[in-house]
Amino acid sequence: MKRILVATSIIVVLFVVFIPQAGAQMDPLLSWNDGPAKQRIFRFVEKVTKENGPDYVPPAECIAVFDSDGTLWPERPLPTELYFVIQRLRQLAPKHPQWRKNPPFKVLFEKNPKALMTLSKQNIEKLMLAAYAGMTQEDFRHEVQNWMATWQHPQLKVGVRGLYYEPMHELLEYLRGNGFKTFIVTGGSSDFVRALSEPLYGVPIDQVVGTEIGLRYKLTGGKSFVVRDPKVTSFENGPLKPVNIERHIGRRPLIAVGNGKSDIETLAYASDRHGMSLCMVISHDDASREFEYRADEVLKPAQERSWLVVSIKRDWKLIFPK
Amino acid sequence: MKRILVATSIIVVLFVVFIPQAGAQMDPLLSWNDGPAKQRIFRFVEKVTKENGPDYVPPAECIAVFDSDGTLWPERPLPTELYFVIQRLRQLAPKHPQWRKNPPFKVLFEKNPKALMTLSKQNIEKLMLAAYAGMTQEDFRHEVQNWMATWQHPQLKVGVRGLYYEPMHELLEYLRGNGFKTFIVTGGSSDFVRALSEPLYGVPIDQVVGTEIGLRYKLTGGKSFVVRDPKVTSFENGPLKPVNIERHIGRRPLIAVGNGKSDIETLAYASDRHGMSLCMVISHDDASREFEYRADEVLKPAQERSWLVVSIKRDWKLIFPK
Repeated sequence: MKRILVATSIIVVLFVVFIPQAGAQMDPLLSWNDGPAKQRIFRFVEKVTKENGPDYVPPAECIAVFDSDGTLWPERPLPTELYFVIQRLRQLAPKHPQWRKNPPFKVLFEKNPKALMTLSKQNIEKLMLAAYAGMTQEDFRHEVQNWMATWQHPQLKVGVRGLYYEPMHELLEYLRGNGFKTFIVTGGSSDFVRALSEPLYGVPIDQVVGTEIGLRYKLTGGKSFVVRDPKVTSFENGPLKPVNIERHIGRRPLIAVGNGKSDIETLAYASDRHGMSLCMVISHDDASREFEYRADEVLKPAQERSWLVVSIKRDWKLIFPK
Repeated sequence: MKRILVATSIIVVLFVVFIPQAGAQMDPLLSWNDGPAKQRIFRFVEKVTKENGPDYVPPAECIAVFDSDGTLWPERPLPTELYFVIQRLRQLAPKHPQWRKNPPFKVLFEKNPKALMTLSKQNIEKLMLAAYAGMTQEDFRHEVQNWMATWQHPQLKVGVRGLYYEPMHELLEYLRGNGFKTFIVTGGSSDFVRALSEPLYGVPIDQVVGTEIGLRYKLTGGKSFVVRDPKVTSFENGPLKPVNIERHIGRRPLIAVGNGKSDIETLAYASDRHGMSLCMVISHDDASREFEYRADEVLKPAQERSWLVVSIKRDWKLIFPK
């Protein structure tokens, strides 16, 4: 009896004492190649989380913001949300015969995908509002979830759940494991990204900050709803991203990650934080495994201000989840 | 040696096994009198957190929203934020001699506090914008923190840290301990409430949703700032509260707590949730320990829809922290 008790107790002690260390020895960024990018991330997180260290940052200030399209998942040939918009508009089209003649709607009925890639911001906004307005928040979420269940990326031939960047998923988890609060700050619409932020990225929906459609409180049959109106109240891009970071998050990020021109102001806002910060730019330079396109506008300030440029080709062992 | 090991191990085992239960036996709502209100709160939380139970709600949907003025702390004789606005305007007054003659500003220089209590919403907005605009977000937070360090409530003679309702503080902690995410949804301005939400209520600043001032991204000397413009972009009240709940939080609350007319739509929005919800109305009926004033507009739907009316007089053993 005594022996069993001793043995059991020792097992419990070993369990309590050693499990945390065993966890710490695993590489949290397994899909990243060893090299300067990975090392710089580790060094930064160690510094800001080392209590009593010179660069320690209190947990409440450990805020990390991530752009979505091109940062957490591909944005080529089109941002994923546009595929949803197109499908939704095609569903609605029979009720709107005038769409076949009028731009920008007639683009939906052409067989030329390039026409969709060259739409202006104003025209994208028009399409989005036609697809998104006139329903309750609940119905909209339901529509997105239905679409997600079957949609496949036209070139990569995977669904939403196979489309995100595995190295970014690991980075999000690694940061949260070190006490960071992770946010998605996107030019996409909040409500679309929220439909997938929890299952895909472990980011709670209230930590998604994006483009907002007009919303209105409405009573229908004595029951309260919030319904969607056809106007954009906050198109999240460029200089509006730091503004919406202040509105939703309320402080400068400690870590900011982006990949394009529309992330420059967000990266600068983190970079100008009093004390340390880590700004990362994802460089799409891997034509064989993903897409190759330059973003010189953001690479220039990245070089000038020593932001970390992550080369997909060089720094990512794996791009998509296996 | 073996005996010591056995003893040590047993202590560790006891520690690991019994500490959580010991914690659970403490009353998490100590400042609440035993009675139907307290029991209803306990029953609700037990039901929605009981895994595999019929009323179980997944953690991501365990959202609790709290109004601020009159719900988390007093709003009489004036909402606390107005004291800050007044002090700030008095500091700025020497640069604005015209204020002494023009309404609503001249009210600041009168010795009649009642004049402040009867200001219209439009006039309060005018005062707030004059006090709040034209500085960076950082400078504004700094101003609020400075003010908080010395201000005292004129009647209760306590500072900000002695002003909140202890029973609500316990409720927030209790809900968080049961996996709830707690939010403040207030008619006050987000940035003001954020200056105190973490130290006072343990609510992270990104979980504060309030009235928003115009914000703008600005480069000054090559450094990025977000500056405050004299316009209200979203006055959070009544039907705008559920709208901003959707914008910031992205789903119906499971628990909503308020005390006045401007909380009715928020309470209804939680109440109309598919499945269970808990809606609470704080009734200010204790003239001797706090303030007494009726809020019939909200008590009527509360009665019709069986929302929980919390009587300060009957249900709260203690009102303010000791």
